[in-house]
Amino acid sequence: MTSDYPFLTVEEVPEYIRNHPRLASHVDAGNLASVREIGDGNLNLVFIAKDNAGRGLVLKQALPYVRMTGESWPMTPERSRFEIQSLEAHAALVPELVVRILDKEPGRYIFAMEDLSDHQVWRGALNKGEVHKGVAAEVGRYAGAVAFGTSVFGMDRLELAARQEVSVDPELCVITEDLVFTEPWAGAERNEWLPQNRADVWEFQADHRFGEAMAEAKYFFMTHAEALLHGDLHTGSVMVRKPEGSNEADSVKVFDSEFAFYGPVAFDVGATWANYAIAAARAYALGEDDRAHWCLGLVGETWHAFEAEFRRRWPERRDPRLWDEEFLNRLLQRWRNESWLFAAAKMSRRIIGAAKTTDIETLPPEIREGAARGVLRMARSAVVERWADSTPNHFQELAEWLLVEARTS
Amino acid sequence: MTSDYPFLTVEEVPEYIRNHPRLASHVDAGNLASVREIGDGNLNLVFIAKDNAGRGLVLKQALPYVRMTGESWPMTPERSRFEIQSLEAHAALVPELVVRILDKEPGRYIFAMEDLSDHQVWRGALNKGEVHKGVAAEVGRYAGAVAFGTSVFGMDRLELAARQEVSVDPELCVITEDLVFTEPWAGAERNEWLPQNRADVWEFQADHRFGEAMAEAKYFFMTHAEALLHGDLHTGSVMVRKPEGSNEADSVKVFDSEFAFYGPVAFDVGATWANYAIAAARAYALGEDDRAHWCLGLVGETWHAFEAEFRRRWPERRDPRLWDEEFLNRLLQRWRNESWLFAAAKMSRRIIGAAKTTDIETLPPEIREGAARGVLRMARSAVVERWADSTPNHFQELAEWLLVEARTS
Repeated sequence: MTSDYPFLTVEEVPEYIRNHPRLASHVDAGNLASVREIGDGNLNLVFIAKDNAGRGLVLKQALPYVRMTGESWPMTPERSRFEIQSLEAHAALVPELVVRILDKEPGRYIFAMEDLSDHQVWRGALNKGEVHKGVAAEVGRYAGAVAFGTSVFGMDRLELAARQEVSVDPELCVITEDLVFTEPWAGAERNEWLPQNRADVWEFQADHRFGEAMAEAKYFFMTHAEALLHGDLHTGSVMVRKPEGSNEADSVKVFDSEFAFYGPVAFDVGATWANYAIAAARAYALGEDDRAHWCLGLVGETWHAFEAEFRRRWPERRDPRLWDEEFLNRLLQRWRNESWLFAAAKMSRRIIGAAKTTDIETLPPEIREGAARGVLRMARSAVVERWADSTPNHFQELAEWLLVEARTS
Repeated sequence: MTSDYPFLTVEEVPEYIRNHPRLASHVDAGNLASVREIGDGNLNLVFIAKDNAGRGLVLKQALPYVRMTGESWPMTPERSRFEIQSLEAHAALVPELVVRILDKEPGRYIFAMEDLSDHQVWRGALNKGEVHKGVAAEVGRYAGAVAFGTSVFGMDRLELAARQEVSVDPELCVITEDLVFTEPWAGAERNEWLPQNRADVWEFQADHRFGEAMAEAKYFFMTHAEALLHGDLHTGSVMVRKPEGSNEADSVKVFDSEFAFYGPVAFDVGATWANYAIAAARAYALGEDDRAHWCLGLVGETWHAFEAEFRRRWPERRDPRLWDEEFLNRLLQRWRNESWLFAAAKMSRRIIGAAKTTDIETLPPEIREGAARGVLRMARSAVVERWADSTPNHFQELAEWLLVEARTS
């Protein structure tokens, strides 16, 4: 464990920028207007520096520990390297959809990236009831490009093997394995929920079919090395922007990929679905039924864009000798089915597990109760219903029905 | 590509042994009776040195190229490292079933192993019509121990990740991917078969279902990193011994694991099944129907011992929170199904692909024709029939029927 490196401070940032010539063209270090720490301090330090001309940049430094719900445990800052690698690998495929890295200093686990102050975190925008049209499709396109471009289909065989060797941080994988798959269903001290949801959690944890689904999901997560995933592709990992007076997003940037690893393609897709359902649960709880309906429509938007992008790149696959259109169709069908499975895991962990979402947590308890219940029921239904009909449309209708039925006021 | 290292010669072996003190206790280098090169020269140099007291040892050196059916292409001798690593990892689990390494010199890609002159290669024994009872079960036990002990079930999570990083040689994986999965069905210049089998091959390559099965098998092979497999577990990778006057094997040693890699567990199991079917095809061709029947019974022997060993170790699994008995049952069922798939690949590659087996190749053409046809038909049936009934018993009955029906004289 490397932890004896100096942590960056607000005071030190101007000098840091001056000492890194590549950063000089992005911000005027001699004429800074502000330097702020904007990270949550749980995993990373994040500084934003702005000059008087309005230009800026962001510095991100990995901390040698993770804090979560009070607990703290050591965590290699090497994850910074995995984040940089994945951002670069993904930017090589869809540069317009990935936050741009400006410079990196691996020795101190720091990298600099473009300032996206004119963007907002998508989850925050959703929580405020804002609509950014087109984002879900762009996220799907990103996932499709990554699924193809970092896999056996898009990469030279030996380069792929070399990249796989350096692209997995097991310490971070363990966090996902425990928090996402094991703990919500099997129980853990750091789990938490409203007293009003106690019966829901009890029922959920008594649902044997869900446990079996998680056993399989976790095994797939740990053994199916299909593509260099983002690893944590929720609405809080996407920055969005729209022009004044429009609801059409004109910029979408994926960031925060420190959980990147070679894993099952459907894990990223399923993560987005889960977060759309959670956003919808919030909207229903607030009585914004039209917007809730729109949130659930994002499931299909992301899937169809994912599929379209993967199919668009398919003719470029490295080895077409066996992998034909029929194989492609079956592969996409399997991924669609597995997206339900991973979405179910992600929904349950956000309601019961240690790391929650502001979508649900900022609701007043009387309506939070029903929102949490609805998401939990959707998670339980998803692992079964995917075998009957794995279309995004079915996901949308099922979630709509369960979330509306469960809401409280 | 490292290829500027000195190749060992027969003349040099005595001095080599003298210079390696660990070898001194295994053979008397000052009193050698013989030194012979026994490798086939396609991939490796293999020397056996014996002293006048009857003791001996084997030296194996990886060559920087592969020769196959006349072709020759460069191939990193680093595979020697993968062979050593896997032999050691497997010996840690079932020392009695793995050839013992006595010393290693990674710089020259040489390692020394115990002399197994009192054993014979199982394929050779089968070809001579000899019966070694109990070997198939021991091979199954080996595969079961490896499946558990090198996987997420038997290993510490971080150690597993570290081992995975250093345990895959993509250059060798590419050989398998091409020779085993792609070329038999998709066609390749180095494919070869008897003129009498031309129609069979044509029919086989026109079988769309088989192509789809291989597309999937190859994808699983390349993306499902379940355990540190042997990678080439055929009857030529097993040494067997039995006491005078008995048909019960008293020693079984797996060797030659240079294709070891993290892959789908069923790949090793399926490889054994394919080779039992091939041994049976030879026996039927020779009119030895009882022995052929016995050969096909090995399919069940290996499977049941594999399953028993895996179940025996299951209570020691690292993380029992989600992985319960029901998950175990489904996992074994999936592996059993996939064993058919990989067996089908292995059967077809041995009949059509570049690297054949002596079981079939040493038969006179008039009966080789039917043996080859039968194995090819079994391969085609296997990819379909596994969905109806994946028990070893069904495999046995199906193969029996197809091989008998196809034989020629």
